[in-house]
Amino acid sequence: MSSPSKVLVQTPYASYPIHIGRSLSKLLIPELVEYAADGVKLAAVTDSNVRAAQSDWFARLEGLAPIHVVPAGEQSKSLAALGKVLDFLAELRLDRGGLVLAVGGGVVGDLAGFAAASYLRGVRFIQIPTTLLAMVDSSVGGKTGINIAAGKNLVGAFHQPVAVYSDLELLKTMPPREFASGMAEIVKHGMLADRELFETLESAPVLNANDPRLERIVQWNCEIKAAVVNADEKETAASGGRALLNLGHTFGHAIENVAGYGEYLHGEAIGIGLVAAALLSQRLGHLNDTDVTRIRSVVSSHRLPTRLGVSLSADKLIAAMQLDKKVRAGTIRFVVMRSIGQAETIESADLETIREIWRACGAA
Amino acid sequence: MSSPSKVLVQTPYASYPIHIGRSLSKLLIPELVEYAADGVKLAAVTDSNVRAAQSDWFARLEGLAPIHVVPAGEQSKSLAALGKVLDFLAELRLDRGGLVLAVGGGVVGDLAGFAAASYLRGVRFIQIPTTLLAMVDSSVGGKTGINIAAGKNLVGAFHQPVAVYSDLELLKTMPPREFASGMAEIVKHGMLADRELFETLESAPVLNANDPRLERIVQWNCEIKAAVVNADEKETAASGGRALLNLGHTFGHAIENVAGYGEYLHGEAIGIGLVAAALLSQRLGHLNDTDVTRIRSVVSSHRLPTRLGVSLSADKLIAAMQLDKKVRAGTIRFVVMRSIGQAETIESADLETIREIWRACGAA
Repeated sequence: MSSPSKVLVQTPYASYPIHIGRSLSKLLIPELVEYAADGVKLAAVTDSNVRAAQSDWFARLEGLAPIHVVPAGEQSKSLAALGKVLDFLAELRLDRGGLVLAVGGGVVGDLAGFAAASYLRGVRFIQIPTTLLAMVDSSVGGKTGINIAAGKNLVGAFHQPVAVYSDLELLKTMPPREFASGMAEIVKHGMLADRELFETLESAPVLNANDPRLERIVQWNCEIKAAVVNADEKETAASGGRALLNLGHTFGHAIENVAGYGEYLHGEAIGIGLVAAALLSQRLGHLNDTDVTRIRSVVSSHRLPTRLGVSLSADKLIAAMQLDKKVRAGTIRFVVMRSIGQAETIESADLETIREIWRACGAA
Repeated sequence: MSSPSKVLVQTPYASYPIHIGRSLSKLLIPELVEYAADGVKLAAVTDSNVRAAQSDWFARLEGLAPIHVVPAGEQSKSLAALGKVLDFLAELRLDRGGLVLAVGGGVVGDLAGFAAASYLRGVRFIQIPTTLLAMVDSSVGGKTGINIAAGKNLVGAFHQPVAVYSDLELLKTMPPREFASGMAEIVKHGMLADRELFETLESAPVLNANDPRLERIVQWNCEIKAAVVNADEKETAASGGRALLNLGHTFGHAIENVAGYGEYLHGEAIGIGLVAAALLSQRLGHLNDTDVTRIRSVVSSHRLPTRLGVSLSADKLIAAMQLDKKVRAGTIRFVVMRSIGQAETIESADLETIREIWRACGAA
């Protein structure tokens, strides 16, 4: 293999490498063998889809780490599924020196990461993301968590992995719709922090794992996200900071919420959310028509929706926004763009404007 | 009221006051009113026993904080009970600026503290301990958590409260056996860190909440525990550090485990554990006969057992020790005393010696 890329994430509390490349198991497996030789107990968590799709990969873990398989899908981000992972770790008698491997997409990373954060009040874990979304987004930043009845990601911990291995080989089996959903966060990173990245995506869309630019793009995105996270690990900055990563998400979460989870993939809802955020930025006088058109075009060329396909009520979407957990003392915070490649948080926006933007995105 | 005592806990990550006194609600309630006036949402968690015993106290919370009541007892330190607390917080739409009040003993503090640590990946909480044990032990140090099938406290988080209010008035309704159980940790603190404290308890036992020395003794114990915790917040010190607080606990946990939870109160098992730890220290040549006799006498004068009342098997007790979560890579760590008022950790002990000590404590 060619030498893999590496991004170093440094927070006030932790520092760890993200390895990016193809056939990374040549790097990972010897490291796990070394851990085991040092008496470190290993345990892996994955989901049923990944277990089936990556059977060759898992064969390499044989004898190194027992594997706990959760059902594929968002429903595994539950307290009940968490309990089963914790029981699995306890049955293995994983001790404080133990190490959890989270092999999967965002659901597995969030669930196994929260289990690692909570088991014995915190053991180490390694993220091995198997989706593009997880590689460029959820595996960077140390957010872990589960859903409860009242909403998604309402419960969790900040727990940084000791390392991330983003093996692009694992993406080869990704369905195109899932791949596109991951690209939404990459488009977002360009819009909020890096005009050059945005223009790279504009020059030609990245549509599958064979694109030779992918390693560089994943690395670039990890760098962008890591820089934001490093400056604001626990999302405590009063303005800007980690909150900027929510560009398009106040809109996107409302779509997921009102449409019902499953109607849109996360990245698809974010695609529409990014266009909505661009429209809001335009209303505030920061972007011009050309900017909005360029953004809509980049979202669309990555096979992501730019407006609602099913009719949702603007009132319901606004009500959902007001329930978002990022709402602080009743005001909805938005992330808007100052220009392509630069974003800022604003404390509130006129509800009538938001309603018009929802209508412009196809809401009833 | 006389001016309350105060201990400041300072860790690398947090700093907060422990207020100790009588009728502290005169201090607490105006502070909560101020929080509420600033738009901070408040929510209280307690258990059915405390709710019933302290109805006057809770009347003062009326209109300030909705109260979630969990069933009294260790079974509330479960994933299911945690889920209900989290749902309660979510239904109130507590946001990131919100504040949780944990009003109760160790169970409530651990459960509500872990809920506060996990809800939205961490909101603030205030501990209002209602038992002596909670005042001198579980409310200091930021350990929160729940039990799972495989064992007690196997899941949780380090989450420091923003303040602790130890109101000695709340202890007036404590049954004498519970009060004595709390004294076990105070005896332990004297044995491991403060000869003067040990000798104060030796001069005359503290047997109920009316003892005028109690405020000073609670403060003293918080200072001892805080000093140990401050130096080693996340229990990562290779030797000594926070692990010293486990004096008597490797033995005590094994007793609780084998006897079945409920047979002994925690402090009662620790009473026997402290005598066992003294015997081990004697075997290692650190303590003499007089020291051991003095320790047995102080434990006993506080109405705590110094040997097993029911016959338990030494083999089972040793097996339980080997399962203790503090076992690292298979070796049982013990805390032993160098002298009265000074302790150290040792990496292992001869199993035959441990068996003899169990027998000396009444095991079969």
